[in-house]
Amino acid sequence: MSTITRFSVAPLSTMTRKLADVAFGRQEPDLVIGDARVLSTYSERILPDKEIWISGGRIAAVQPKGTYKGGDAKIYDAAGGIIAPGLVDPHIHVESSMITACAYAEAALLNGTTTIFCDSHEIGNVMDVAGVEAMLEDARQAPLSIFLTVPSTVPATSPELETAGGDLTPDKIAAIFDKWPEAVALGEKMDFVPVAMSDERSHAIIAAALERGRPVCGHIYGRQFVAAYAAAGVTDTHEAIDREIADDLLEAGIWLFLRGGPPTTPWHSLPEAIKTITELGASHKRVCVCTDDRDADDLLIFGQDWVTRQAVKAGMTREQAWSMGSLHGATRYGMENEFGGMGGGRRADVVLLTDDLEPVNTWYGGELMVENKAITPLLDAALSNPYRYPDAAYHTVKLPTEITLAPELPTEKVTAHAIRTELPGIELGHVKITLDPANDWQSHFDRHDLCFVSVIERHGKSNGNVSRGLLNNFGLKQGAVASSVGHDSHNIIIAGTNEADMQVALRAIEDHQGGVCVVADGEIKAMLPLPIAGLLSDKRVGEVAEEVKALKVEWEKAGCTIAYMGFNLIPLSVIPEIRITDMGLVLVPEMETVPLFETA
Amino acid sequence: MSTITRFSVAPLSTMTRKLADVAFGRQEPDLVIGDARVLSTYSERILPDKEIWISGGRIAAVQPKGTYKGGDAKIYDAAGGIIAPGLVDPHIHVESSMITACAYAEAALLNGTTTIFCDSHEIGNVMDVAGVEAMLEDARQAPLSIFLTVPSTVPATSPELETAGGDLTPDKIAAIFDKWPEAVALGEKMDFVPVAMSDERSHAIIAAALERGRPVCGHIYGRQFVAAYAAAGVTDTHEAIDREIADDLLEAGIWLFLRGGPPTTPWHSLPEAIKTITELGASHKRVCVCTDDRDADDLLIFGQDWVTRQAVKAGMTREQAWSMGSLHGATRYGMENEFGGMGGGRRADVVLLTDDLEPVNTWYGGELMVENKAITPLLDAALSNPYRYPDAAYHTVKLPTEITLAPELPTEKVTAHAIRTELPGIELGHVKITLDPANDWQSHFDRHDLCFVSVIERHGKSNGNVSRGLLNNFGLKQGAVASSVGHDSHNIIIAGTNEADMQVALRAIEDHQGGVCVVADGEIKAMLPLPIAGLLSDKRVGEVAEEVKALKVEWEKAGCTIAYMGFNLIPLSVIPEIRITDMGLVLVPEMETVPLFETA
Repeated sequence: MSTITRFSVAPLSTMTRKLADVAFGRQEPDLVIGDARVLSTYSERILPDKEIWISGGRIAAVQPKGTYKGGDAKIYDAAGGIIAPGLVDPHIHVESSMITACAYAEAALLNGTTTIFCDSHEIGNVMDVAGVEAMLEDARQAPLSIFLTVPSTVPATSPELETAGGDLTPDKIAAIFDKWPEAVALGEKMDFVPVAMSDERSHAIIAAALERGRPVCGHIYGRQFVAAYAAAGVTDTHEAIDREIADDLLEAGIWLFLRGGPPTTPWHSLPEAIKTITELGASHKRVCVCTDDRDADDLLIFGQDWVTRQAVKAGMTREQAWSMGSLHGATRYGMENEFGGMGGGRRADVVLLTDDLEPVNTWYGGELMVENKAITPLLDAALSNPYRYPDAAYHTVKLPTEITLAPELPTEKVTAHAIRTELPGIELGHVKITLDPANDWQSHFDRHDLCFVSVIERHGKSNGNVSRGLLNNFGLKQGAVASSVGHDSHNIIIAGTNEADMQVALRAIEDHQGGVCVVADGEIKAMLPLPIAGLLSDKRVGEVAEEVKALKVEWEKAGCTIAYMGFNLIPLSVIPEIRITDMGLVLVPEMETVPLFETA
Repeated sequence: MSTITRFSVAPLSTMTRKLADVAFGRQEPDLVIGDARVLSTYSERILPDKEIWISGGRIAAVQPKGTYKGGDAKIYDAAGGIIAPGLVDPHIHVESSMITACAYAEAALLNGTTTIFCDSHEIGNVMDVAGVEAMLEDARQAPLSIFLTVPSTVPATSPELETAGGDLTPDKIAAIFDKWPEAVALGEKMDFVPVAMSDERSHAIIAAALERGRPVCGHIYGRQFVAAYAAAGVTDTHEAIDREIADDLLEAGIWLFLRGGPPTTPWHSLPEAIKTITELGASHKRVCVCTDDRDADDLLIFGQDWVTRQAVKAGMTREQAWSMGSLHGATRYGMENEFGGMGGGRRADVVLLTDDLEPVNTWYGGELMVENKAITPLLDAALSNPYRYPDAAYHTVKLPTEITLAPELPTEKVTAHAIRTELPGIELGHVKITLDPANDWQSHFDRHDLCFVSVIERHGKSNGNVSRGLLNNFGLKQGAVASSVGHDSHNIIIAGTNEADMQVALRAIEDHQGGVCVVADGEIKAMLPLPIAGLLSDKRVGEVAEEVKALKVEWEKAGCTIAYMGFNLIPLSVIPEIRITDMGLVLVPEMETVPLFETA
């Protein structure tokens, strides 16, 4: 276990007398951060000439500069810098960064983030309740305040369309709430169409949360669904893509989480959605910012601090933006008495900022974890003995010994239902290609810009389900690329130009019990091992970031037109127009399968 | 039980499918309020051309005007008026209005208030847990959403200084939280000095709330106490008297409840405290408005709606002010998913307003309770069969058969410690008056502007404790005035010019088992019976308001310089400089007793 965790700070109920003693001057603080300007998320002002008294990992008081006259307290000179509450990220998926919650803590603290609300949807899809609970243990042992929004939509579709590892029923979700106090909300209810259509299971899951006084998080596209979705009890979303739907959502009583992401990706919806405030005049009091998903190597560049600065760039004041990145998320979850501001009794999760809101130092529970933008020995020690996932988590890739991955070469003229990849890589096109009889696949590939794509069930639940299809416009010139992160059921997805390289890729993933790899000429060119649930590395964020970078180099060399994050979405059978799961080609939104070939 | 209560609307968890059906148009709403502007407490804008679809007492959707094409729904034409969420009063004492919670509901709904958070501190002081629980039952059966903030400071001082009926220990408070889900917070922790001084019992009571995730409400004067009070876990207050302390409180993480009251009283602190926003630039997002205490006859004039309008008068926009009167209180208590806004799934607690924010109609749980500023037959029926308090509540005035009320005439020259009443009637002065021997009290009264004042223990806990003192400057010309509402222990307080009239007053109160009266020449000139716990009438608010008005006429005729609300505070031994309890004259802040006479 990490030496510093969320539990290193005692509950406020046990500390009020001591904190009152310190605030009144009857006892010494442990630490005084002196000569600070305080960014107040409560009043949205920057208060000059303050000092912060910390005791037992909590804020005892913010006093006028110079109030502390010396004594036993440690002094940290903020030298006139801005002290603000640590950021609160109200919606993320740790698994997207392919690292553990403990490993995520390092990046978060470097970004000035001290609290996150994560939806462990992916590991739930692989390992069911056991996966969710393992990540909760991981979270408990991390040097970060990590709360869970319980995965609400596992599997993402139905057993008729794909084989998932998990099946989180209403009863199982209720049991997680009852067992884990840090399960503070229901995670994004992604099946917004069934929710709007009053689907029984979807609403039973919502009821499990509401009955327990837990709020329901959302994920919704389409203005026509907003009213019914809100009426169903959903009270946040992070998917607002423009000011009009943002406005609708806000007025329907839904908290807006403005998502920032790498600006070249469609995840970066903040600049448009924030116009509900900057152009349409809405109050920002029920608006937060969040990160949602991040590659490991993007974590340090595009963290919650970066998103907060994007809000400033879009027209908010620094004080408003920082509030949207901290206090507002805490308020949304009813936890603003514990973090998100510099009030008395709150956790001393505190950052030192430049005037441009760049985090320089981060104190977590009063302990200096990041100084001058680098981790301290204390944080290094805290990270050096992380939670170890149970053995079962290291054995989730279960494959038959013999699998054929490429489709058979048609001997007659056929129409193939191919999947066309398009930038930015989220939606996929459905193209029908006439294949005249040929001697080999290569001539089809050359003529129609194709390669193979296969999905292999890996949860040991089917009798070795494999489906085989064709990708159009993917750009793969030779070899194969493969991933055990195949949203949302996380079967193995492989694209390739030949059976041999695809087999090498598949067995490389099996050997590592998960990963993403690039293969050419029978050789593994890059391998990102993801041994935990086939989703997560067990290394630290810096190492994984390097591995990701190396993978991206080979990925591009192989010619792939869409990034591996987009590739991982190819099996996600809830996004138009056509996807491939272990059970075949799925037409969206018809939600039915179609064979690869039809007689032309 | 009232025919309409908080429970007439089913929990959202049971209604999400139906509401989604209605919002999407698959089922008919019960009621459509058409042609409305909507005051959005979420975005702080007024939205033109809307209609509100209501189903099962909840808001299914706010739609563009004209979306509903006709069918089975009842239609209410708002004729272009403003529809807004019902007001949420985050801090009141029902007992101050000397009526039951059921009776309070009538006034609240007339004021557009649909949710209140009440601290049943007074009945707790008389009847301990049994009183608090009786009021909780009363609240459950009222046509209003009433939540409890559990009385935290009973008794207000100590058994050495006064005899109270209640003693709410940490264990008893914990048990109330565990038994009653509507006990949502700890009530105002009035003993702010002991809290700041880390008093053990005070902090054990705070811990009982915090351990259960319940917030702690506050009551504090004095900037020097703010930091320690906040560090002790207190997160709201309604006592900010000027912009400086308001600012301190806000920055310490404490929600501000700006209190409005009759403008001639010191309770009306809103105009000064709001300057933290209007002059010092603080955000209003953590600021609410509240009423706190009201005479029954002031309830309809100076309700939460009036306070909200005072915020507009002080410089807030209408949208901001109404948010401060509704959504912000709901947010402070973590209940904004249930009320305080027009979002989907929320209770249909909705008001129709004039452009000046005067409530015209009130719907409670979708039922029209007030129309054109008058109660509907539905509300009249709901009020006609209120909760009946248990018999024990009707028998709380327990007196010995013989009591002498006036002090003995000194036979020698003495110095008397007299209590000087001053307008506005809260603080009392300590005056030392030299009394030369005289033949009767009347000559002392004439020379020194005095009358008698006595406090009689009425809980049956002492052996007939009576203390006798002298009031200076009270103005009573003849007869006696008396009250069983003697804050906070609610022993009987009587002022008089002669023993006989004081006895008549005392026995009148005994006969009614509580009340406030004016007596002259052996005759009862006015009597406000308060048979429930000696604090509350069991009549409806209109009747009580008439009785209060009649009482006030006689009170003034009798010459009393301070109002009866101030008179009731004379035993409250936490306000300077000198008070009288059943145990004698108490010097504040020395917190010690002093005899009435000392040898001169």
